[in-house]
Amino acid sequence: MTQNTTQSLKELAKRRGFFIPSNEIYGGTAGFYTFGPHGTALKRNLEDVWRDRFTYQEGNMEIEAPTIMPEDVFEASGHLETFDDMIIECPECGESIRADHLVEDNTDIEEAESFSTDRIMEIIEENSLQCPNCGEELADVEVDDFNLMFGTNIGPGDSSPGYLRPETAQGIFVEFPQWKEYARNQLPFGVTQIGKAYRNEISPRKSIVRVREFTQAELEFFIDPEKDEPEMEDVEDVELRLYPINEQDKDGGEVLEMTVAEAVENGVVASDWIAYYLGISKKWYERIGIDMDRFRFRQHLEDERSHYASDCWDAESEVGGDWIEITGFAYRGCYDLKKHQEHSGEDFTVFKPYDEPKTVEKATVSPDMSVLGPEYGDRASDIADELGRIAEEEPERFEEQESISLEIDGETVNVPVEKTGFTRKEVEETGEHIMPETVEPSFGVDRILYTVLAHNLEEDEVDGEERTVLRLPAEVAPVEVAVFPLMDKDGMGERARKVARSLRESGFSVKYDDSGAIGRRYRRQDEIGTPICATVDHQTLEDGTVTLRDRDSTEQVRVNVEELEKSLKGFMDGNDLKEF
Amino acid sequence: MTQNTTQSLKELAKRRGFFIPSNEIYGGTAGFYTFGPHGTALKRNLEDVWRDRFTYQEGNMEIEAPTIMPEDVFEASGHLETFDDMIIECPECGESIRADHLVEDNTDIEEAESFSTDRIMEIIEENSLQCPNCGEELADVEVDDFNLMFGTNIGPGDSSPGYLRPETAQGIFVEFPQWKEYARNQLPFGVTQIGKAYRNEISPRKSIVRVREFTQAELEFFIDPEKDEPEMEDVEDVELRLYPINEQDKDGGEVLEMTVAEAVENGVVASDWIAYYLGISKKWYERIGIDMDRFRFRQHLEDERSHYASDCWDAESEVGGDWIEITGFAYRGCYDLKKHQEHSGEDFTVFKPYDEPKTVEKATVSPDMSVLGPEYGDRASDIADELGRIAEEEPERFEEQESISLEIDGETVNVPVEKTGFTRKEVEETGEHIMPETVEPSFGVDRILYTVLAHNLEEDEVDGEERTVLRLPAEVAPVEVAVFPLMDKDGMGERARKVARSLRESGFSVKYDDSGAIGRRYRRQDEIGTPICATVDHQTLEDGTVTLRDRDSTEQVRVNVEELEKSLKGFMDGNDLKEF
Repeated sequence: MTQNTTQSLKELAKRRGFFIPSNEIYGGTAGFYTFGPHGTALKRNLEDVWRDRFTYQEGNMEIEAPTIMPEDVFEASGHLETFDDMIIECPECGESIRADHLVEDNTDIEEAESFSTDRIMEIIEENSLQCPNCGEELADVEVDDFNLMFGTNIGPGDSSPGYLRPETAQGIFVEFPQWKEYARNQLPFGVTQIGKAYRNEISPRKSIVRVREFTQAELEFFIDPEKDEPEMEDVEDVELRLYPINEQDKDGGEVLEMTVAEAVENGVVASDWIAYYLGISKKWYERIGIDMDRFRFRQHLEDERSHYASDCWDAESEVGGDWIEITGFAYRGCYDLKKHQEHSGEDFTVFKPYDEPKTVEKATVSPDMSVLGPEYGDRASDIADELGRIAEEEPERFEEQESISLEIDGETVNVPVEKTGFTRKEVEETGEHIMPETVEPSFGVDRILYTVLAHNLEEDEVDGEERTVLRLPAEVAPVEVAVFPLMDKDGMGERARKVARSLRESGFSVKYDDSGAIGRRYRRQDEIGTPICATVDHQTLEDGTVTLRDRDSTEQVRVNVEELEKSLKGFMDGNDLKEF
Repeated sequence: MTQNTTQSLKELAKRRGFFIPSNEIYGGTAGFYTFGPHGTALKRNLEDVWRDRFTYQEGNMEIEAPTIMPEDVFEASGHLETFDDMIIECPECGESIRADHLVEDNTDIEEAESFSTDRIMEIIEENSLQCPNCGEELADVEVDDFNLMFGTNIGPGDSSPGYLRPETAQGIFVEFPQWKEYARNQLPFGVTQIGKAYRNEISPRKSIVRVREFTQAELEFFIDPEKDEPEMEDVEDVELRLYPINEQDKDGGEVLEMTVAEAVENGVVASDWIAYYLGISKKWYERIGIDMDRFRFRQHLEDERSHYASDCWDAESEVGGDWIEITGFAYRGCYDLKKHQEHSGEDFTVFKPYDEPKTVEKATVSPDMSVLGPEYGDRASDIADELGRIAEEEPERFEEQESISLEIDGETVNVPVEKTGFTRKEVEETGEHIMPETVEPSFGVDRILYTVLAHNLEEDEVDGEERTVLRLPAEVAPVEVAVFPLMDKDGMGERARKVARSLRESGFSVKYDDSGAIGRRYRRQDEIGTPICATVDHQTLEDGTVTLRDRDSTEQVRVNVEELEKSLKGFMDGNDLKEF
């Protein structure tokens, strides 16, 4: 069953131009796939529907940043330091193996990713695990951290290392100072991006599920955590299937069913914002044809979370018996903006005006540089800065002590208070600078495409014959309508080509096919999920009607060519074909 | 003037969210730009209109291949060997300089790119050229070839080098054996791809014109050169501005104006197929708003052509006094397919059936292995293969000589003819395997976007006030309609938000704006090229009409809200606003 599903999917993907392993003429390149014509159309439709929901309808801005980014970015973001997988190299055959997968595949341990390299080495030794390629015992072989970013050099020489971005998000974060200008300094606002991301996986596997180059659709939504609330009324009744940490931890733990409102009320989902995005995403998955009986939201275990996330849920779909992460919902807090602010020295805060200006007491210094200068030379200005900091944080010291003792470059310096120009004064403040927090839904487009294919691929029987049918929602189908002449003679071919052209001009995605028996042409379209086939036959030449055939029911109705566009629009909007 | 154009473009691009230099918080990364919300929308619209014309309307297949490709691909394609620019490194300050640009910028020489490195060194010495950074004399400094591909490693270690593709085309060529299956082995057919390509430029310059990461929209059209003809009737009357080699070569050479039909007839454009694509592309450039008075097709000089092209024309646009290549039209012949066939050993031919089966004489061998085996051991099968090859290519040797002398592993072997089983027989052949030739229009999306902005950016005066206006065609404008409440009170805000939402649901790209004076809101929309603004005012609350204001004429008409969608559709289709 498991094998069957993924195997028939693989065959269909190749036969019907959804996706193929890349560069097979050169023996293939593990972890890279090429989308064929129908896969490309399906992928683009999924991206468009995502854009409609998460950019347009939410009123967010879409941007497009480069895929190559300089080292500074990933030093700040933490990817250079921590974006690693565990690798073990077989001393016998040289095979590179992902150590945590070796453990998971050969023991009862799950989530070995969260263990230390030392612990993984112990487990390998305790279980006498062997190289899956040559059978060599791997006890005592070093397990190392391997950084998953693809590195390159920007410009000639190697003085400017760059990396292919491991997530599209960083291209949004680094330009935050500009985005906040476009948002006129008003929180909340969201920035989306659809684009390539890269991870140099040690062992790519599972078709297009774990690949080295993939497409993400990410939203970074920036909020004032003290003030901004999501529009919960839009989602409160949406039913969720949730698999929280405590259910995962206990024997016989279950997926809980509850509405978004209940999940927030019961504290199952801690953040309103995460709950909001689970709600709108659930409706979006249904829209694109994911089977909600093979779907759940799973909370990340504590040691499974990324370095930037304080709470994280995954949307997971079931394919061939495996659960696949198709979206991550992370509460990133102010991790990223803060890191980039620290690393770059630029301002990543947003000015938040008070409802009314506030009068506050401020302690300030105005050191007598004519004294500090001659006495401390080069260090005078550092001393002045440090006095300012102390005045702000510990003003009482200036009143309680006769001199302020501070440390500069490891040396203790005492400055008499009368030389510091310390005063307290009342100032009026109109607002404060706050660091926004970030909520991130991050969608894996390739995995979603894979799920949509898997969940809609069916075998059924029509007139006693087996057929393969892909029951895609019309909105995402690569071809919306196929146009056939019954035969390419008596003017039927010309008439059909005219129909195809006119539908194309009206914006439909159309396939014209005049090759082979009509039954075979139906089967081809069934396999790529085309919802409607329109056939020009002898009767068309007499009364101007064509046969419309519904993919799912295989029922047929006749519609006048003049009415065709309207009928198809109605069908795409969800009306029954029979009503025409 | 020149400076002004590019400077105001740069300012507008940043102010209004078209594009910004990337990573400025870290000092910037030369050659990388990030598209802001309006740039991203404009870029996507340009891509969609391209897809409509070059994929849908032409009936081609669109695919999506990875951006990282393995070394084999570029060994075969020639990029590893020849995709170089000339680099000179200043011995004083270490600056890397593109040597041909140094020559062009400081002498009267044009197209220095086509010179050898030795010749460039001579010119540098003759002209005493200096480092543009520190002024050091560069005579006698080595000029080297620098490969422009970004390199990386696929998987752990460095045993699998990979490169970021320098053109999207190779992702199409390497999978040709699969595409021909999808095309059911019928030529001609075309494969398109829109995606990122990368060139590690030595000195990126001119805003988004010469960058290190950019987007291409490429069509590879595969033809049987003996049979396939383009549909010239679709383009024969299209007027072209052509700048062929002989005009470029002579003093006072001119751009020639002629129709596609004339260009082919006069032999100015040698290939029908190139002429066809110049024709449909010209109409496409007009559709997206490129100014045909600042446009030409220029033929590549012979030494300027890429390693794969036999004839090449560039579409060039004028911006700020410079001519920018925005599209290359290359007749690549069978260069790429042949190279990949040779390098991979896979079959890149297409079977071309004869009109009627042909009877041909074939010379074959059937060596007596019971003799060859014992006598030659391991080499027997190689000998049999070689005999087969000789029978095919030089059958007369079997009739003229008593034994066939052949070389195996550097050793000469003589095989008596009677042991070879040589015969000539008549066989019926139904067709032949041919290598398709390739015609390639390759569009630079970023440069086209830059041109579209530059050619539509104008300053004019409205009611005595200067304004900046971007006269984009409605089809590509980032925002199609902006909706304003005159003020956010008396229910105007709610009404306007309802109008905006309903237009969005009907598929319009809509901007809602209620901030600042109405005049300022108009100016903002003028600067991003929004063709129509709709304002909800007091009268709306009384009679249900809104004010529509035309960007170009600034004229206003009132339209009933019920009619709004229809009116806007009509306007987008080219009707005058006044007709409503």
